[in-house]
Amino acid sequence: MAQAHWGCCPWLVLLCASVWSYPNPGFLGREDVRNCSTNPPHLPVTAVNTTLRLAALRQQIQNWNLSAYIIPDTDAHMSEYISKHDERRAWISGFTGTTGTAVVTLGKAAVWTDSRYWTQAERQMDCNWELHREADAVSVATWILTEIPAGGRVGFDPFLFSVDSWEDYDRTFQDSNRHLVSITDNLVDLAWGSERPPVLSPPIYALPEAFTGSTWREKVSVIRSYMQNHTMAPTGLLLSALDETAWLFNLRSSDIPYNPFFYSYTLLTNCSIRLFVNKSRFSPETLQYLNTNCTGPLCVQLEDYSQVRDSVQAYASGNVKIWIGLSYTTYGLYEVIPKEKLVKSSYSPVMEIKAVKNSKEQALLKASHVRDAVAVIRYLVWLEKNVPLGTVDEFSGAELLNEFRSKEDFSSGPSFETISASGLNAALAHYSPTKELHRKLSSDEMYLVDSGGQYWDGTTDITRTVHWGTPTAFQKEAYTRVLMGSIDLSRLVFPAFTSGRIMDAFARRALWEVGLNYGHGTGHGIGNFLCVHEWPVGFQYNNIAMVKGMFTSIEPGYYQDGEFGIRLEDVALVVEAKTKMNK
Amino acid sequence: MAQAHWGCCPWLVLLCASVWSYPNPGFLGREDVRNCSTNPPHLPVTAVNTTLRLAALRQQIQNWNLSAYIIPDTDAHMSEYISKHDERRAWISGFTGTTGTAVVTLGKAAVWTDSRYWTQAERQMDCNWELHREADAVSVATWILTEIPAGGRVGFDPFLFSVDSWEDYDRTFQDSNRHLVSITDNLVDLAWGSERPPVLSPPIYALPEAFTGSTWREKVSVIRSYMQNHTMAPTGLLLSALDETAWLFNLRSSDIPYNPFFYSYTLLTNCSIRLFVNKSRFSPETLQYLNTNCTGPLCVQLEDYSQVRDSVQAYASGNVKIWIGLSYTTYGLYEVIPKEKLVKSSYSPVMEIKAVKNSKEQALLKASHVRDAVAVIRYLVWLEKNVPLGTVDEFSGAELLNEFRSKEDFSSGPSFETISASGLNAALAHYSPTKELHRKLSSDEMYLVDSGGQYWDGTTDITRTVHWGTPTAFQKEAYTRVLMGSIDLSRLVFPAFTSGRIMDAFARRALWEVGLNYGHGTGHGIGNFLCVHEWPVGFQYNNIAMVKGMFTSIEPGYYQDGEFGIRLEDVALVVEAKTKMNK
Repeated sequence: MAQAHWGCCPWLVLLCASVWSYPNPGFLGREDVRNCSTNPPHLPVTAVNTTLRLAALRQQIQNWNLSAYIIPDTDAHMSEYISKHDERRAWISGFTGTTGTAVVTLGKAAVWTDSRYWTQAERQMDCNWELHREADAVSVATWILTEIPAGGRVGFDPFLFSVDSWEDYDRTFQDSNRHLVSITDNLVDLAWGSERPPVLSPPIYALPEAFTGSTWREKVSVIRSYMQNHTMAPTGLLLSALDETAWLFNLRSSDIPYNPFFYSYTLLTNCSIRLFVNKSRFSPETLQYLNTNCTGPLCVQLEDYSQVRDSVQAYASGNVKIWIGLSYTTYGLYEVIPKEKLVKSSYSPVMEIKAVKNSKEQALLKASHVRDAVAVIRYLVWLEKNVPLGTVDEFSGAELLNEFRSKEDFSSGPSFETISASGLNAALAHYSPTKELHRKLSSDEMYLVDSGGQYWDGTTDITRTVHWGTPTAFQKEAYTRVLMGSIDLSRLVFPAFTSGRIMDAFARRALWEVGLNYGHGTGHGIGNFLCVHEWPVGFQYNNIAMVKGMFTSIEPGYYQDGEFGIRLEDVALVVEAKTKMNK
Repeated sequence: MAQAHWGCCPWLVLLCASVWSYPNPGFLGREDVRNCSTNPPHLPVTAVNTTLRLAALRQQIQNWNLSAYIIPDTDAHMSEYISKHDERRAWISGFTGTTGTAVVTLGKAAVWTDSRYWTQAERQMDCNWELHREADAVSVATWILTEIPAGGRVGFDPFLFSVDSWEDYDRTFQDSNRHLVSITDNLVDLAWGSERPPVLSPPIYALPEAFTGSTWREKVSVIRSYMQNHTMAPTGLLLSALDETAWLFNLRSSDIPYNPFFYSYTLLTNCSIRLFVNKSRFSPETLQYLNTNCTGPLCVQLEDYSQVRDSVQAYASGNVKIWIGLSYTTYGLYEVIPKEKLVKSSYSPVMEIKAVKNSKEQALLKASHVRDAVAVIRYLVWLEKNVPLGTVDEFSGAELLNEFRSKEDFSSGPSFETISASGLNAALAHYSPTKELHRKLSSDEMYLVDSGGQYWDGTTDITRTVHWGTPTAFQKEAYTRVLMGSIDLSRLVFPAFTSGRIMDAFARRALWEVGLNYGHGTGHGIGNFLCVHEWPVGFQYNNIAMVKGMFTSIEPGYYQDGEFGIRLEDVALVVEAKTKMNK
């Protein structure tokens, strides 16, 4: 699955800085997007009336004596996929794209998002909202500076801000006499009230040992040895990302779509293990599995999920040093730890340890991919027979593929929403068909299917692009060059600890040669029944260096707007190369 | 010339963190390095007695009520090459390597440097000094934290700190109750006293128009249009790097070895041009060339070099915004500008404009390379005749090459100290022979010569590796793969604005394939009679994206410790590719 972090060159950012708009001229006259420049404005049926919602939020903004309130797109764990009850930006703005920040002042409301979502935003937002065609925190902060008066207070929920994004805002506001105000009560939730979807609390279960690479006690030992060997001698490690806690304890649930996670934090110290979670979700067997009936260094003490901030603050008052990974820790926890007691790294040691699969984890992941391939091949064979009959569409195809997957052993649903895209739809990033809106598959068009499954032993992700008739010469050349990129990168021999960023271009060289390219990342980590994008492995600037035992997708592509899209995706394992010389 | 920024992987840094030493066990028993663990200590003849120097500096440290003083390795312009009178770290420590930081406390003295210089440091330093085998500011700052008491004051010369390195120290000291104290009087200079070499002030001259790409007035206009188009609307641009001012005014001199620069700063505003320099160095013709007799927007107002801090501070008190490039601006100027009046970018617009050569500059640079090639070819032909006679050594060879270059038109000396290295010497990074210490060239060994010239029209840099007898199969394979890397990168077709960092691995792939690699960067920008390493063009993480009109060296290599070294270096121009499709 092509990841969400689409590349945006600096010069593009320069060009588009300070560009925002109601619908651009290209949209004028189109019925399916809003037009706020007519009187009365034109609103498509897909637009959401946010007038009452905004009034309710502005009441809260006034209650707290603020000039503006920032609404990010994530949850308290910096999750890529979020639950319905965390879709605050979607509720307040109507815009449901996965990426985008909203800001509401007393007089204005605005959304910032990247090019994948501009059309969608124009379809879903009413004329209460400005659309800013950029997505970085500095742009948002700069806009706020110009919109609110000197002395103005800008509210935000610290649990929805990474430390990095908080620093972006803080730096931009420095010396501006505008003030960031951290408010742990979420103002959108207060406005949302009883209509907010409830938090689901399905059972949390332990993975059978056959599906785990090591026991949770072994993992705890390894992490503690990392802590002991660290030059800054941290006494505790705070884990905020949901996959960190799920991986550490070999526990799973289903709080988040497509991700077998449960809301939780872990504070692992050199002499205790504290798991913050809704305790009622454990069975007596799981409580026993976790060894919760004691207080020794290998006993898990359960504390309520809502207590994490207070508990971390209390722990931080002692003679301690707390290790955090900056990428997944929210400002809500960061701000209660005194600076001199912090040990910081980009990623927690759990993220780094988890990235390298041991031999059992490798075998498990491979086995899940073999079964997954059976489902995909069944689907491709079925398509070859049925597409020429004209009876298949993108949506029914995706449903059939899900069904084939569900029949494989240990299946636990899809790992993301299937991208099943025919003809020109495949040129759209992250297109997914719906029951209502889809295209028929045809022998005259290319068809791209990017899909994956969750299995108890592994997470899968595979993309194939096919044509049942006669592709054009251009399509053949583009397909061949995408395949060349895939082969060139897959066969690359490189020194251990080389960054994926350095290797990325090998997947592109064959395309570059004839003036083609693609606008998304080249791959992402993937693992054992966790999130389909298992960072920090991958080919982007913020990914960690590659060593043997890491799995990554390799997924070059080519997209011809309005015509077709090609992507080929496989999962590769980094293995030791036997080279002629090994200096 | 292979650049000084040798790669150091993060895991290597982790491994060597907190490792420092008096001579390591490998050195014990060697006569040419110090051994501080014997009684009395063994000091080689190359070691410098620093006892009196340290006493003089510690007197200053006490006068200023400090606990420690930091001595970096650069000058007030973040220059790569520095003058004798700026070699403060070399004077105080005895260690003359180009890279390394010294810290002196009341009880201890220590130097931090990277692996290229460890042996040299053990040869040159006496037992007053610890050697720390790492080189980053955070390591230095962390050591200081542990060495000085709470409340301790750490002095530094703000003109020797980039903004970035100051921030590294500041962040490490945060909440530690240790305080950075900016002192514009340099304490080493005070200790050095009358023995400090004087500042040279040779004449500053204007390049004849035939050797410039545009007039200084044209350059000023272009830069002002950049300022006007900037969203932050800077009113002034402060230029600190010596090549910025030299390039802007088409002026040259010889204050710095190998670099035709002169000590200067420029404050270019939308209505004035202020050049900070020793005015007495201009001839009446040059004063007229600079239009110094007026105050309009195209008149150059000369101010004394020493006045720059006060003048910038005074300018900053007005209703202004000052644009600085963070990479070359020192904290000494940064700290006098209120934060809200700063417009920051990694590099000044001059650095970015200068990086793209216009057609005249391209033609000039090419012409200088053609003449330079004549000198190099003459030398190689001469070697082919004379090496078999056994009469050539590394030093006399380098001198002859310099002589051949000096006979070419518009020659202005070498662009760096020639690396003339035979056999195992070529495996040492940055080896240069001396009159006293050199190796004979032989038909049985490989010979590497990395050299360049300064010419009024261009700066050159070329490396060739040759063998006059029969190389081993391994040498042939390594040479072939270095050449493959050079060809692969030179022929690469890539999208405009691709970062060099992304392309770097194409120069390495052929080596990687058989388990070989090299530990330095792949290339650097180069231009018209400026510094041989003309950043920010290149293949490293902090280099700017490539566009047509940029020149860069391409210089892969392979080094077999104790045996031989191979490097091939050419200068390449980024040109527009005619691709089959151009999407």
